[in-house]
Amino acid sequence: MRVNKDNSKLGFQGVRGSFSEEALIKHYGENNNARSFEEFEDVFIALKNNEIDYGILPIENSCTGAISKVYDLLSKYGFYIVAEECIKIDQHLIGIKGSKLEDIEEVYSHAQGFEQSTEFLKNYPNLKLIPYHNTAISAKMICDSGDKRKAAIASKRAAKIYGLEIIKERINDKEDNHTKFIIIGRDLEVEEENNKVTVVFSLEDKAGTLYRLLRHFAENNINMMKIESRPNKHESWKYLLYVDFEGNVKDEEVKNALELIAHNSGYFKLLGSYKKA
Amino acid sequence: MRVNKDNSKLGFQGVRGSFSEEALIKHYGENNNARSFEEFEDVFIALKNNEIDYGILPIENSCTGAISKVYDLLSKYGFYIVAEECIKIDQHLIGIKGSKLEDIEEVYSHAQGFEQSTEFLKNYPNLKLIPYHNTAISAKMICDSGDKRKAAIASKRAAKIYGLEIIKERINDKEDNHTKFIIIGRDLEVEEENNKVTVVFSLEDKAGTLYRLLRHFAENNINMMKIESRPNKHESWKYLLYVDFEGNVKDEEVKNALELIAHNSGYFKLLGSYKKA
Repeated sequence: MRVNKDNSKLGFQGVRGSFSEEALIKHYGENNNARSFEEFEDVFIALKNNEIDYGILPIENSCTGAISKVYDLLSKYGFYIVAEECIKIDQHLIGIKGSKLEDIEEVYSHAQGFEQSTEFLKNYPNLKLIPYHNTAISAKMICDSGDKRKAAIASKRAAKIYGLEIIKERINDKEDNHTKFIIIGRDLEVEEENNKVTVVFSLEDKAGTLYRLLRHFAENNINMMKIESRPNKHESWKYLLYVDFEGNVKDEEVKNALELIAHNSGYFKLLGSYKKA
Repeated sequence: MRVNKDNSKLGFQGVRGSFSEEALIKHYGENNNARSFEEFEDVFIALKNNEIDYGILPIENSCTGAISKVYDLLSKYGFYIVAEECIKIDQHLIGIKGSKLEDIEEVYSHAQGFEQSTEFLKNYPNLKLIPYHNTAISAKMICDSGDKRKAAIASKRAAKIYGLEIIKERINDKEDNHTKFIIIGRDLEVEEENNKVTVVFSLEDKAGTLYRLLRHFAENNINMMKIESRPNKHESWKYLLYVDFEGNVKDEEVKNALELIAHNSGYFKLLGSYKKA
Protein backbone atom coordinates (compact mmCIF):
# COMPACT_ATOMS: atom_id res chain seq x y z
CA MET A 1 0.00 0.00 0.00
CA ARG A 2 1.21 3.48 -0.79
CA VAL A 3 -0.76 6.15 1.05
CA ASN A 4 -2.29 8.79 -1.18
CA LYS A 5 0.18 11.40 0.07
CA ASP A 6 -0.35 13.98 -2.64
CA ASN A 7 -4.11 13.86 -2.24
CA SER A 8 -4.41 12.79 -5.87
CA LYS A 9 -7.93 12.56 -7.24
CA LEU A 10 -8.68 8.88 -7.84
CA GLY A 11 -11.31 7.03 -9.87
CA PHE A 12 -12.50 3.45 -10.32
CA GLN A 13 -15.20 1.63 -12.24
CA GLY A 14 -18.05 0.03 -10.33
CA VAL A 15 -19.91 0.80 -7.13
CA ARG A 16 -19.01 0.51 -3.46
CA GLY A 17 -18.09 -3.07 -2.67
CA SER A 18 -16.62 -3.84 -6.11
CA PHE A 19 -13.32 -5.64 -6.49
CA SER A 20 -11.92 -2.49 -8.16
CA GLU A 21 -12.66 -0.53 -4.99
CA GLU A 22 -11.02 -3.29 -2.95
CA ALA A 23 -7.86 -3.02 -5.08
CA LEU A 24 -7.91 0.76 -4.76
CA ILE A 25 -8.13 0.51 -0.96
CA LYS A 26 -5.27 -2.00 -0.89
CA HIS A 27 -3.15 0.43 -2.90
CA TYR A 28 -4.15 3.81 -1.46
CA GLY A 29 -5.75 3.02 1.91
CA GLU A 30 -9.31 3.62 3.13
CA ASN A 31 -9.14 7.43 3.00
CA ASN A 32 -8.84 7.77 -0.73
CA ASN A 33 -11.79 10.02 -1.67
CA ALA A 34 -12.13 8.05 -4.88
CA ARG A 35 -14.93 8.67 -7.35
CA SER A 36 -16.74 5.74 -8.92
CA PHE A 37 -17.67 5.54 -12.60
CA GLU A 38 -20.17 3.34 -14.38
CA GLU A 39 -18.05 2.15 -17.30
CA PHE A 40 -14.34 1.42 -17.83
CA GLU A 41 -14.26 4.13 -20.49
CA ASP A 42 -15.71 6.72 -18.08
CA VAL A 43 -12.51 6.39 -16.01
CA PHE A 44 -10.41 7.15 -19.11
CA ILE A 45 -12.64 10.12 -20.01
CA ALA A 46 -12.41 11.52 -16.46
CA LEU A 47 -8.62 11.24 -16.64
CA LYS A 48 -8.61 13.00 -20.03
CA ASN A 49 -10.78 15.83 -18.62
CA ASN A 50 -8.55 16.26 -15.56
CA GLU A 51 -11.42 15.26 -13.27
CA ILE A 52 -9.14 12.61 -11.76
CA ASP A 53 -5.36 12.18 -11.62
CA TYR A 54 -5.28 8.38 -11.54
CA GLY A 55 -7.72 5.61 -12.40
CA ILE A 56 -7.69 1.96 -11.35
CA LEU A 57 -8.88 -0.78 -13.73
CA PRO A 58 -8.81 -4.59 -13.79
CA ILE A 59 -6.46 -5.91 -16.46
CA GLU A 60 -6.23 -9.68 -15.91
CA ASN A 61 -7.68 -12.50 -13.83
CA SER A 62 -5.49 -15.52 -13.11
CA CYS A 63 -8.28 -17.95 -14.17
CA THR A 64 -10.25 -16.16 -16.87
CA GLY A 65 -7.47 -14.10 -18.47
CA ALA A 66 -7.22 -10.59 -19.85
CA ILE A 67 -9.92 -7.93 -19.53
CA SER A 68 -9.65 -7.16 -23.21
CA LYS A 69 -11.76 -4.00 -23.17
CA VAL A 70 -9.23 -2.32 -20.87
CA TYR A 71 -6.41 -3.23 -23.28
CA ASP A 72 -8.34 -1.62 -26.14
CA LEU A 73 -8.97 1.53 -24.09
CA LEU A 74 -5.27 1.80 -23.23
CA SER A 75 -4.50 2.06 -26.94
CA LYS A 76 -7.42 4.36 -27.65
CA TYR A 77 -6.61 6.96 -24.98
CA GLY A 78 -2.82 6.73 -24.87
CA PHE A 79 -2.42 7.01 -21.08
CA TYR A 80 0.29 5.28 -19.07
CA ILE A 81 0.35 2.46 -16.56
CA VAL A 82 2.05 3.85 -13.44
CA ALA A 83 1.41 1.02 -10.96
CA GLU A 84 -0.04 -2.44 -10.56
CA GLU A 85 -2.03 -4.01 -7.71
CA CYS A 86 -3.19 -7.59 -7.22
CA ILE A 87 -5.98 -8.88 -4.98
CA LYS A 88 -7.36 -12.30 -4.16
CA ILE A 89 -10.85 -12.84 -5.52
CA ASP A 90 -13.23 -14.96 -3.48
CA GLN A 91 -16.75 -15.27 -4.82
CA HIS A 92 -19.61 -16.02 -2.42
CA LEU A 93 -23.28 -16.77 -2.93
CA ILE A 94 -25.03 -14.05 -0.96
CA GLY A 95 -28.69 -13.22 -0.28
CA ILE A 96 -30.99 -11.35 2.09
CA LYS A 97 -31.05 -12.27 5.76
CA GLY A 98 -32.43 -15.73 6.40
CA SER A 99 -32.44 -16.93 2.79
CA LYS A 100 -31.15 -20.47 2.27
CA LEU A 101 -29.66 -22.25 -0.72
CA GLU A 102 -32.94 -24.14 -1.28
CA ASP A 103 -34.88 -20.82 -1.50
CA ILE A 104 -32.80 -19.48 -4.35
CA GLU A 105 -34.22 -19.49 -7.88
CA GLU A 106 -32.29 -16.67 -9.59
CA VAL A 107 -28.62 -15.73 -9.31
CA TYR A 108 -27.28 -12.35 -10.43
CA SER A 109 -23.62 -11.61 -11.11
CA HIS A 110 -21.12 -10.34 -13.64
CA ALA A 111 -20.36 -12.92 -16.35
CA GLN A 112 -16.92 -13.34 -14.71
CA GLY A 113 -18.60 -14.22 -11.39
CA PHE A 114 -20.42 -17.08 -13.11
CA GLU A 115 -17.36 -18.14 -15.08
CA GLN A 116 -15.22 -18.32 -11.95
CA SER A 117 -17.88 -20.42 -10.14
CA THR A 118 -18.68 -22.92 -12.91
CA GLU A 119 -18.04 -26.05 -10.85
CA PHE A 120 -20.29 -24.96 -7.98
CA LEU A 121 -23.10 -23.87 -10.32
CA LYS A 122 -23.02 -27.19 -12.19
CA ASN A 123 -24.44 -28.84 -9.05
CA TYR A 124 -27.51 -26.60 -9.18
CA PRO A 125 -28.72 -26.75 -12.79
CA ASN A 126 -32.13 -25.30 -11.83
CA LEU A 127 -30.68 -21.94 -10.77
CA LYS A 128 -31.44 -19.29 -13.36
CA LEU A 129 -28.25 -17.31 -14.00
CA ILE A 130 -28.81 -13.67 -14.90
CA PRO A 131 -25.75 -11.76 -16.11
CA TYR A 132 -25.59 -8.31 -14.55
CA HIS A 133 -23.40 -5.22 -14.80
CA ASN A 134 -21.00 -6.27 -12.06
CA THR A 135 -20.84 -8.31 -8.86
CA ALA A 136 -21.34 -5.41 -6.42
CA ILE A 137 -24.31 -3.96 -8.33
CA SER A 138 -25.82 -7.46 -8.26
CA ALA A 139 -25.46 -7.45 -4.45
CA LYS A 140 -27.05 -4.00 -4.26
CA MET A 141 -29.93 -5.19 -6.42
CA ILE A 142 -30.60 -8.20 -4.13
CA CYS A 143 -30.57 -5.85 -1.14
CA ASP A 144 -33.06 -3.48 -2.86
CA SER A 145 -35.31 -6.36 -3.94
CA GLY A 146 -35.57 -7.92 -0.46
CA ASP A 147 -36.46 -11.13 -2.32
CA LYS A 148 -35.49 -14.44 -0.67
CA ARG A 149 -35.52 -16.23 -4.02
CA LYS A 150 -32.76 -14.04 -5.43
CA ALA A 151 -29.03 -14.28 -4.72
CA ALA A 152 -25.88 -12.66 -6.04
CA ILE A 153 -22.35 -13.93 -6.60
CA ALA A 154 -20.12 -11.23 -5.12
CA SER A 155 -17.46 -10.47 -2.50
CA LYS A 156 -17.71 -10.68 1.28
CA ARG A 157 -17.21 -6.93 1.37
CA ALA A 158 -20.18 -6.35 -0.96
CA ALA A 159 -22.31 -8.58 1.32
CA LYS A 160 -21.33 -6.49 4.33
CA ILE A 161 -21.91 -3.13 2.63
CA TYR A 162 -25.38 -4.09 1.39
CA GLY A 163 -26.42 -5.88 4.59
CA LEU A 164 -26.58 -9.32 2.98
CA GLU A 165 -25.70 -12.75 4.33
CA ILE A 166 -23.36 -15.34 2.90
CA ILE A 167 -25.39 -18.39 1.85
CA LYS A 168 -22.41 -20.35 0.56
CA GLU A 169 -18.83 -19.29 1.09
CA ARG A 170 -16.03 -19.34 -1.50
CA ILE A 171 -17.78 -20.87 -4.48
CA ASN A 172 -14.99 -20.00 -6.93
CA ASP A 173 -13.58 -23.06 -8.74
CA LYS A 174 -10.00 -22.26 -7.85
CA GLU A 175 -8.68 -21.33 -4.46
CA ASP A 176 -5.94 -19.48 -6.34
CA ASN A 177 -8.08 -16.80 -8.01
CA HIS A 178 -6.45 -13.37 -8.30
CA THR A 179 -7.09 -10.24 -10.32
CA LYS A 180 -4.40 -7.77 -11.36
CA PHE A 181 -5.35 -4.10 -11.60
CA ILE A 182 -3.45 -1.30 -13.30
CA ILE A 183 -3.32 2.29 -12.15
CA ILE A 184 -3.27 4.68 -15.09
CA GLY A 185 -2.14 8.29 -15.25
CA ARG A 186 -1.63 10.97 -17.88
CA ASP A 187 2.17 10.82 -17.77
CA LEU A 188 4.86 8.18 -17.89
CA GLU A 189 6.39 7.83 -14.41
CA VAL A 190 10.01 6.75 -14.31
CA GLU A 191 11.04 5.56 -10.85
CA GLU A 192 14.17 3.72 -9.76
CA GLU A 193 12.10 0.91 -8.20
CA ASN A 194 10.16 0.11 -11.40
CA ASN A 195 10.84 -3.41 -12.68
CA LYS A 196 8.14 -3.98 -15.29
CA VAL A 197 7.49 -2.40 -18.68
CA THR A 198 4.47 -2.67 -21.00
CA VAL A 199 4.59 -1.86 -24.71
CA VAL A 200 2.18 -2.26 -27.61
CA PHE A 201 3.10 -2.70 -31.24
CA SER A 202 1.42 -3.76 -34.48
CA LEU A 203 2.23 -7.10 -36.01
CA GLU A 204 2.84 -7.13 -39.75
CA ASP A 205 1.52 -10.07 -41.73
CA LYS A 206 4.87 -11.44 -42.89
CA ALA A 207 6.72 -14.67 -42.11
CA GLY A 208 9.04 -14.13 -39.18
CA THR A 209 7.96 -10.60 -38.24
CA LEU A 210 7.17 -11.33 -34.60
CA TYR A 211 10.29 -13.45 -34.38
CA ARG A 212 12.44 -10.58 -35.62
CA LEU A 213 10.84 -8.18 -33.12
CA LEU A 214 11.23 -10.57 -30.18
CA ARG A 215 14.88 -11.00 -31.10
CA HIS A 216 15.48 -7.52 -29.66
CA PHE A 217 14.19 -8.70 -26.28
CA ALA A 218 16.08 -11.99 -26.41
CA GLU A 219 19.38 -10.44 -27.50
CA ASN A 220 19.17 -7.94 -24.68
CA ASN A 221 18.42 -10.80 -22.28
CA ILE A 222 15.03 -9.32 -21.35
CA ASN A 223 12.46 -11.66 -19.84
CA MET A 224 9.07 -11.40 -21.53
CA MET A 225 6.33 -12.05 -18.99
CA LYS A 226 3.19 -11.87 -21.09
CA ILE A 227 1.98 -11.35 -24.63
CA GLU A 228 -1.61 -10.31 -25.36
CA SER A 229 -3.07 -10.02 -28.83
CA ARG A 230 -5.98 -7.68 -29.66
CA PRO A 231 -7.65 -6.74 -32.95
CA ASN A 232 -6.08 -3.74 -34.66
CA LYS A 233 -9.14 -1.50 -34.94
CA HIS A 234 -8.00 -0.14 -38.28
CA GLU A 235 -7.84 -3.43 -40.19
CA SER A 236 -9.69 -6.74 -39.80
CA TRP A 237 -7.65 -9.81 -38.78
CA LYS A 238 -4.60 -7.66 -38.05
CA TYR A 239 -3.36 -7.39 -34.51
CA LEU A 240 -1.82 -5.21 -31.85
CA LEU A 241 0.44 -7.09 -29.45
CA TYR A 242 0.76 -5.97 -25.84
CA VAL A 243 3.94 -7.25 -24.25
CA ASP A 244 4.90 -7.10 -20.55
CA PHE A 245 8.56 -7.61 -19.72
CA GLU A 246 10.92 -7.29 -16.79
CA GLY A 247 13.11 -4.21 -16.55
CA ASN A 248 13.27 -0.48 -16.11
CA VAL A 249 13.10 2.00 -18.99
CA LYS A 250 16.39 3.46 -17.71
CA ASP A 251 18.24 0.13 -18.22
CA GLU A 252 20.58 0.21 -21.23
CA GLU A 253 19.28 -3.18 -22.46
CA VAL A 254 15.66 -2.02 -22.24
CA LYS A 255 16.46 1.24 -24.03
CA ASN A 256 18.21 -0.70 -26.83
CA ALA A 257 15.37 -3.16 -27.25
CA LEU A 258 12.68 -0.47 -27.24
CA GLU A 259 14.49 1.62 -29.84
CA LEU A 260 14.89 -1.34 -32.17
CA ILE A 261 11.28 -2.51 -31.76
CA ALA A 262 9.93 1.02 -32.26
CA HIS A 263 12.05 1.31 -35.40
CA ASN A 264 10.96 -2.05 -36.82
CA SER A 265 7.21 -2.13 -36.15
CA GLY A 266 4.50 -0.17 -37.98
CA TYR A 267 2.96 1.11 -34.77
CA PHE A 268 4.69 1.24 -31.40
CA LYS A 269 3.94 2.80 -28.02
CA LEU A 270 5.51 2.53 -24.59
CA LEU A 271 2.50 2.00 -22.32
CA GLY A 272 4.11 2.13 -18.92
CA SER A 273 6.96 1.60 -16.52
CA TYR A 274 5.97 0.45 -13.04
CA LYS A 275 6.61 -1.86 -10.13
CA LYS A 276 5.33 -5.45 -10.24
CA ALA A 277 2.52 -6.11 -7.75
CA MET B 1 -20.49 -24.16 -48.55
CA ARG B 2 -19.91 -27.88 -48.44
CA VAL B 3 -23.12 -29.90 -48.42
CA ASN B 4 -23.46 -32.32 -45.51
CA LYS B 5 -23.00 -35.33 -47.81
CA ASP B 6 -22.30 -37.90 -45.14
CA ASN B 7 -25.31 -36.86 -43.12
CA SER B 8 -23.03 -36.07 -40.21
CA LYS B 9 -24.74 -35.14 -36.97
CA LEU B 10 -24.10 -31.45 -36.32
CA GLY B 11 -24.38 -29.24 -33.26
CA PHE B 12 -24.16 -25.52 -32.45
CA GLN B 13 -24.57 -23.29 -29.43
CA GLY B 14 -27.53 -20.95 -29.28
CA VAL B 15 -31.09 -20.97 -30.51
CA ARG B 16 -32.67 -20.58 -33.96
CA GLY B 17 -31.64 -17.26 -35.42
CA SER B 18 -28.23 -17.16 -33.73
CA PHE B 19 -25.11 -16.20 -35.66
CA SER B 20 -23.74 -19.71 -34.98
CA GLU B 21 -26.72 -21.19 -36.82
CA GLU B 22 -26.15 -18.71 -39.65
CA ALA B 23 -22.52 -19.87 -39.95
CA LEU B 24 -23.62 -23.50 -39.87
CA ILE B 25 -26.10 -22.91 -42.70
CA LYS B 26 -23.43 -21.11 -44.73
CA HIS B 27 -21.14 -24.12 -44.30
CA TYR B 28 -23.55 -27.06 -44.52
CA GLY B 29 -26.68 -25.64 -46.20
CA GLU B 30 -30.23 -25.31 -44.88
CA ASN B 31 -30.90 -29.04 -44.57
CA ASN B 32 -28.42 -29.76 -41.83
CA ASN B 33 -30.53 -31.34 -39.09
CA ALA B 34 -28.32 -29.62 -36.54
CA ARG B 35 -29.03 -29.78 -32.82
CA SER B 36 -28.72 -26.66 -30.72
CA PHE B 37 -27.09 -26.56 -27.29
CA GLU B 38 -27.35 -24.00 -24.53
CA GLU B 39 -23.67 -23.54 -23.66
CA PHE B 40 -20.41 -23.73 -25.63
CA GLU B 41 -19.29 -26.59 -23.40
CA ASP B 42 -22.47 -28.59 -24.15
CA VAL B 43 -21.30 -28.83 -27.78
CA PHE B 44 -17.96 -30.29 -26.62
CA ILE B 45 -19.75 -32.74 -24.30
CA ALA B 46 -22.10 -33.87 -27.09
CA LEU B 47 -19.09 -34.47 -29.34
CA LYS B 48 -17.38 -36.45 -26.58
CA ASN B 49 -20.51 -38.59 -26.07
CA ASN B 50 -20.85 -39.28 -29.82
CA GLU B 51 -24.19 -37.47 -29.88
CA ILE B 52 -22.83 -35.28 -32.67
CA ASP B 53 -19.99 -35.72 -35.20
CA TYR B 54 -19.14 -32.04 -35.62
CA GLY B 55 -19.80 -28.88 -33.65
CA ILE B 56 -19.59 -25.25 -34.77
CA LEU B 57 -18.39 -22.52 -32.41
CA PRO B 58 -17.43 -18.84 -32.73
CA ILE B 59 -13.69 -18.30 -32.23
CA GLU B 60 -13.03 -14.66 -33.11
CA ASN B 61 -14.77 -11.43 -34.05
CA SER B 62 -12.89 -8.94 -36.22
CA CYS B 63 -13.76 -6.02 -33.86
CA THR B 64 -13.95 -7.52 -30.39
CA GLY B 65 -11.35 -10.27 -30.71
CA ALA B 66 -11.09 -13.87 -29.50
CA ILE B 67 -13.92 -15.79 -27.85
CA SER B 68 -11.59 -16.90 -25.10
CA LYS B 69 -13.91 -19.48 -23.54
CA VAL B 70 -13.84 -21.50 -26.76
CA TYR B 71 -10.02 -21.46 -26.74
CA ASP B 72 -10.03 -22.81 -23.19
CA LEU B 73 -12.51 -25.56 -24.11
CA LEU B 74 -10.34 -26.59 -27.09
CA SER B 75 -7.50 -27.32 -24.66
CA LYS B 76 -9.76 -28.95 -22.09
CA TYR B 77 -11.41 -31.45 -24.48
CA GLY B 78 -8.58 -32.06 -26.95
CA PHE B 79 -10.71 -32.13 -30.12
CA TYR B 80 -9.57 -30.90 -33.52
CA ILE B 81 -10.46 -27.97 -35.74
CA VAL B 82 -11.45 -29.47 -39.11
CA ALA B 83 -12.84 -26.39 -40.86
CA GLU B 84 -13.39 -22.65 -40.55
CA GLU B 85 -16.30 -20.46 -41.63
CA CYS B 86 -16.65 -16.67 -41.60
CA ILE B 87 -19.83 -14.61 -41.69
CA LYS B 88 -20.59 -10.90 -41.76
CA ILE B 89 -22.22 -9.69 -38.56
CA ASP B 90 -24.79 -6.92 -38.82
CA GLN B 91 -26.50 -5.91 -35.61
CA HIS B 92 -29.96 -4.32 -35.73
CA LEU B 93 -32.18 -2.78 -33.10
CA ILE B 94 -35.36 -4.85 -33.32
CA GLY B 95 -38.69 -4.76 -31.51
CA ILE B 96 -42.32 -5.83 -31.75
CA LYS B 97 -44.45 -4.62 -34.64
CA GLY B 98 -45.07 -0.90 -34.55
CA SER B 99 -42.56 -0.04 -31.84
CA LYS B 100 -40.45 3.05 -32.53
CA LEU B 101 -37.06 4.18 -31.29
CA GLU B 102 -38.73 6.73 -28.96
CA ASP B 103 -40.81 3.95 -27.32
CA ILE B 104 -37.77 1.91 -26.28
CA GLU B 105 -36.64 1.96 -22.65
CA GLU B 106 -34.78 -1.35 -22.31
CA VAL B 107 -32.44 -3.08 -24.74
CA TYR B 108 -31.52 -6.77 -24.42
CA SER B 109 -28.54 -8.40 -26.12
CA HIS B 110 -25.38 -10.41 -25.62
CA ALA B 111 -22.53 -8.31 -24.21
CA GLN B 112 -20.89 -8.56 -27.67
CA GLY B 113 -24.03 -7.04 -29.26
CA PHE B 114 -23.64 -3.99 -27.02
CA GLU B 115 -19.89 -3.84 -27.50
CA GLN B 116 -20.21 -3.89 -31.28
CA SER B 117 -22.83 -1.10 -31.20
CA THR B 118 -21.13 1.28 -28.75
CA GLU B 119 -21.20 4.34 -31.01
CA PHE B 120 -24.93 4.04 -31.74
CA LEU B 121 -25.82 3.44 -28.08
CA LYS B 122 -23.81 6.48 -26.95
CA ASN B 123 -26.44 8.67 -28.64
CA TYR B 124 -29.18 7.20 -26.43
CA PRO B 125 -27.79 7.33 -22.89
CA ASN B 126 -31.27 6.79 -21.40
CA LEU B 127 -31.61 3.29 -22.84
CA LYS B 128 -31.18 0.69 -20.13
CA LEU B 129 -28.86 -2.02 -21.46
CA ILE B 130 -29.56 -5.49 -20.11
CA PRO B 131 -26.96 -8.16 -20.92
CA TYR B 132 -28.61 -11.43 -21.94
CA HIS B 133 -27.54 -14.95 -22.87
CA ASN B 134 -27.23 -14.26 -26.59
CA THR B 135 -28.63 -12.06 -29.34
CA ALA B 136 -31.20 -14.56 -30.67
CA ILE B 137 -32.56 -15.43 -27.21
CA SER B 138 -32.91 -11.67 -26.62
CA ALA B 139 -35.03 -11.46 -29.80
CA LYS B 140 -37.15 -14.42 -28.66
CA MET B 141 -37.66 -12.77 -25.28
CA ILE B 142 -38.88 -9.50 -26.89
CA CYS B 143 -41.27 -11.53 -29.04
CA ASP B 144 -42.60 -13.40 -25.95
CA SER B 145 -42.94 -10.16 -23.95
CA GLY B 146 -44.94 -8.31 -26.62
CA ASP B 147 -43.71 -5.15 -24.89
CA LYS B 148 -43.24 -2.02 -27.04
CA ARG B 149 -40.76 -0.56 -24.57
CA LYS B 150 -38.31 -3.43 -25.02
CA ALA B 151 -35.93 -4.01 -27.92
CA ALA B 152 -33.14 -6.43 -28.74
CA ILE B 153 -29.87 -6.06 -30.61
CA ALA B 154 -29.76 -9.08 -32.94
CA SER B 155 -29.57 -10.20 -36.56
CA LYS B 156 -32.09 -9.64 -39.36
CA ARG B 157 -32.65 -13.38 -39.44
CA ALA B 158 -33.54 -13.45 -35.73
CA ALA B 159 -36.02 -10.61 -36.32
CA LYS B 160 -37.65 -12.60 -39.11
CA ILE B 161 -37.79 -15.88 -37.15
CA TYR B 162 -39.38 -14.25 -34.10
CA GLY B 163 -41.75 -12.00 -36.08
CA LEU B 164 -40.06 -8.76 -35.02
CA GLU B 165 -39.46 -5.52 -36.90
CA ILE B 166 -36.23 -3.68 -37.47
CA ILE B 167 -36.39 -0.34 -35.63
CA LYS B 168 -32.90 0.78 -36.65
CA GLU B 169 -30.81 -1.03 -39.21
CA ARG B 170 -27.09 -1.84 -38.95
CA ILE B 171 -26.20 -0.20 -35.68
CA ASN B 172 -22.78 -1.90 -35.44
CA ASP B 173 -19.91 0.59 -35.17
CA LYS B 174 -17.98 -0.92 -38.04
CA GLU B 175 -19.33 -1.84 -41.42
CA ASP B 176 -16.53 -4.42 -41.52
CA ASN B 177 -17.69 -6.68 -38.68
CA HIS B 178 -17.08 -10.40 -39.19
CA THR B 179 -17.01 -13.47 -36.96
CA LYS B 180 -14.93 -16.56 -37.63
CA PHE B 181 -16.32 -19.93 -36.55
CA ILE B 182 -14.48 -23.21 -36.19
CA ILE B 183 -15.91 -26.63 -36.88
CA ILE B 184 -14.57 -29.19 -34.42
CA GLY B 185 -14.45 -32.99 -34.72
CA ARG B 186 -13.03 -35.89 -32.77
CA ASP B 187 -10.23 -36.59 -35.25
CA LEU B 188 -7.54 -34.65 -37.05
CA GLU B 189 -8.51 -34.38 -40.73
CA VAL B 190 -5.62 -34.15 -43.16
CA GLU B 191 -6.74 -32.94 -46.58
CA GLU B 192 -4.66 -31.81 -49.53
CA GLU B 193 -6.55 -28.46 -49.69
CA ASN B 194 -5.81 -27.51 -46.06
CA ASN B 195 -3.72 -24.35 -45.78
CA LYS B 196 -3.97 -23.39 -42.12
CA VAL B 197 -2.70 -25.04 -38.94
CA THR B 198 -3.44 -24.27 -35.28
CA VAL B 199 -1.22 -25.39 -32.41
CA VAL B 200 -1.12 -24.70 -28.68
CA PHE B 201 1.95 -24.76 -26.46
CA SER B 202 2.96 -23.64 -23.01
CA LEU B 203 5.28 -20.70 -22.59
CA GLU B 204 8.07 -21.11 -20.05
CA ASP B 205 8.99 -18.12 -17.94
CA LYS B 206 12.51 -17.63 -19.24
CA ALA B 207 14.14 -14.87 -21.25
CA GLY B 208 13.94 -15.66 -24.94
CA THR B 209 11.73 -18.78 -24.72
CA LEU B 210 9.04 -17.59 -27.12
CA TYR B 211 11.70 -16.20 -29.41
CA ARG B 212 13.46 -19.59 -29.55
CA LEU B 213 10.15 -21.35 -30.31
CA LEU B 214 9.15 -18.89 -33.03
CA ARG B 215 12.55 -19.37 -34.63
CA HIS B 216 11.32 -22.76 -35.84
CA PHE B 217 8.50 -21.06 -37.75
CA ALA B 218 10.73 -18.30 -39.09
CA GLU B 219 13.53 -20.65 -40.18
CA ASN B 220 11.03 -22.80 -42.05
CA ASN B 221 9.62 -19.67 -43.66
CA ILE B 222 6.18 -20.27 -42.15
CA ASN B 223 3.84 -17.28 -41.90
CA MET B 224 2.31 -16.91 -38.45
CA MET B 225 -1.19 -15.44 -38.76
CA LYS B 226 -2.26 -15.07 -35.15
CA ILE B 227 -1.07 -15.59 -31.61
CA GLU B 228 -3.53 -15.83 -28.72
CA SER B 229 -2.52 -16.08 -25.08
CA ARG B 230 -4.71 -17.75 -22.43
CA PRO B 231 -4.11 -18.55 -18.75
CA ASN B 232 -2.55 -21.95 -18.16
CA LYS B 233 -5.17 -23.44 -15.85
CA HIS B 234 -2.51 -25.32 -13.87
CA GLU B 235 -0.47 -22.32 -12.76
CA SER B 236 -1.36 -18.66 -12.17
CA TRP B 237 0.25 -16.06 -14.47
CA LYS B 238 1.59 -18.77 -16.77
CA TYR B 239 0.23 -19.03 -20.28
CA LEU B 240 -0.78 -21.27 -23.13
CA LEU B 241 -0.16 -19.76 -26.55
CA TYR B 242 -2.44 -20.62 -29.46
CA VAL B 243 -0.76 -19.98 -32.79
CA ASP B 244 -2.40 -20.05 -36.25
CA PHE B 245 -0.05 -20.31 -39.22
CA GLU B 246 -0.20 -20.92 -42.96
CA GLY B 247 0.58 -24.39 -44.27
CA ASN B 248 -0.42 -28.03 -44.39
CA VAL B 249 0.71 -30.61 -41.84
CA LYS B 250 2.02 -32.67 -44.79
CA ASP B 251 4.49 -29.91 -45.82
CA GLU B 252 8.10 -30.75 -44.94
CA GLU B 253 8.66 -27.27 -43.46
CA VAL B 254 5.57 -27.55 -41.27
CA LYS B 255 6.55 -31.04 -40.09
CA ASN B 256 10.03 -29.77 -39.19
CA ALA B 257 8.73 -26.77 -37.29
CA LEU B 258 6.11 -28.78 -35.38
CA GLU B 259 8.62 -31.42 -34.34
CA LEU B 260 11.04 -28.83 -33.02
CA ILE B 261 8.36 -26.85 -31.19
CA ALA B 262 6.86 -30.00 -29.65
CA HIS B 263 10.34 -31.02 -28.52
CA ASN B 264 11.17 -27.63 -27.00
CA SER B 265 7.96 -26.66 -25.19
CA GLY B 266 6.63 -28.07 -21.92
CA TYR B 267 3.20 -28.73 -23.35
CA PHE B 268 2.36 -29.00 -27.04
CA LYS B 269 -0.69 -30.06 -29.06
CA LEU B 270 -1.60 -29.88 -32.73
CA LEU B 271 -5.15 -28.47 -32.65
CA GLY B 272 -6.10 -28.69 -36.28
CA SER B 273 -5.35 -28.64 -39.95
CA TYR B 274 -7.99 -27.01 -42.14
CA LYS B 275 -8.81 -24.68 -44.98
CA LYS B 276 -8.89 -20.91 -44.38
CA ALA B 277 -12.40 -19.45 -44.64
